[in-house]
Amino acid sequence: MINKEGHTQHISQQYNVELEEVRSHLLAMGGLVEKQVSDAVRAVIDADAGLARQVRTIDDQIDIMERGIDEECLRILARRQPAASDLRLIISISKSVIDLERIGDEASKIARRAIELTEDGEAPRGYVEVRHIGEQVRKMVHQALDAFARFDAELALSVAQYDKLIDREYKSALRELATYMMEDPRSISRVLSIIWVLRSLERVGDHARNIAELVIYLVQGTDVRHMGLKRMAEEVNRSRE
Amino acid sequence: MINKEGHTQHISQQYNVELEEVRSHLLAMGGLVEKQVSDAVRAVIDADAGLARQVRTIDDQIDIMERGIDEECLRILARRQPAASDLRLIISISKSVIDLERIGDEASKIARRAIELTEDGEAPRGYVEVRHIGEQVRKMVHQALDAFARFDAELALSVAQYDKLIDREYKSALRELATYMMEDPRSISRVLSIIWVLRSLERVGDHARNIAELVIYLVQGTDVRHMGLKRMAEEVNRSRE
Repeated sequence: MINKEGHTQHISQQYNVELEEVRSHLLAMGGLVEKQVSDAVRAVIDADAGLARQVRTIDDQIDIMERGIDEECLRILARRQPAASDLRLIISISKSVIDLERIGDEASKIARRAIELTEDGEAPRGYVEVRHIGEQVRKMVHQALDAFARFDAELALSVAQYDKLIDREYKSALRELATYMMEDPRSISRVLSIIWVLRSLERVGDHARNIAELVIYLVQGTDVRHMGLKRMAEEVNRSRE
Repeated sequence: MINKEGHTQHISQQYNVELEEVRSHLLAMGGLVEKQVSDAVRAVIDADAGLARQVRTIDDQIDIMERGIDEECLRILARRQPAASDLRLIISISKSVIDLERIGDEASKIARRAIELTEDGEAPRGYVEVRHIGEQVRKMVHQALDAFARFDAELALSVAQYDKLIDREYKSALRELATYMMEDPRSISRVLSIIWVLRSLERVGDHARNIAELVIYLVQGTDVRHMGLKRMAEEVNRSRE
């Protein structure tokens, strides 16, 4: 049985501390990554090159955090030889960290586009969509991490479900922007910058969904990737009964 | 000391068999993924909607392979409690499998664009670039897997180095296509389809590089991610001396 902290109690107090620590490092990295996403979006919207450059600098810090968490997981695997729910915790952490690092990468790419846009001049369209989708995916990242912190499979499920909405909004924004480019070809390169921003945001949503799926795996022991939302929901609800 | 098969010999013959098996499953998945990339590119170039649909169907098979390999890794971690180079092997496999699955996803996205292009009509530009970059990244995937099969850190290094070239070619192709769109706005949506194909190919290159970095970690025990190519090369050459 998993306890409130999500893993079995161990005779070794030190082992418990190690598991708690690596999990809290993941959540700290997640908090920073979430802030990177919202700062990058703000840099686009406010045409703030300084903020964009700051996002790009902080990306190095995220890489260092990733490496540190990886080393902790490896050390625990080698020394503690975790089993059952502890093993699932370590696996989920070491996979989530990859998604967090890639969310950081996308934030950094968005910041690069923000800098481009301050140089090339504002795009004529797309800021509403960037703000809106940006806020949604930031929230997805936040909730995926919250679900990780609370071992909450239902919250994780709602993050995965939300990703479908984002995909729809993203596609409709793209269609609109493509139409706009045809009407005003001189704006093409600036509109393309906005399209890349939206693309990155859509990927942030994908990564948040991946983390959410890992939370469901962690809590329930079922691999729900590629499962389709309907079966995933059945899986989560089944275990609640 | 790692032997030719890349892991220490064990008293348990069965354990050796398990390690060999999971590695060969990874390579089999890699072979299929590589074929998916080249088929998807061919579907774009030959405007072959049938081939594109086939790529999209086979994607499910890749997801099943991913899940199978994940389960094998988990079983080995739980039962065999691998240490040192065996643990690195399992970690590298379980991370590489994520990259392979995402390469498969990109192939599937390319196939979707191929179908779009058979419906909307040919794009006026970009096929030369798709063929060229497509062939390069397919080769990167092939060599990354080869490096995995042979525990060849130098080959892995060359894959990582190659990724930089791809990024340059990709950026130059994008600039050209953006210029072309301005000249012929009616072609925008078809040119955008080609741009998405190129974007996916560039990501395939990124994933191949990730796998290559995992090979270097596997062989040398050094985490070379985010290290920069120069330091990575020093790291690989250092251990050769």
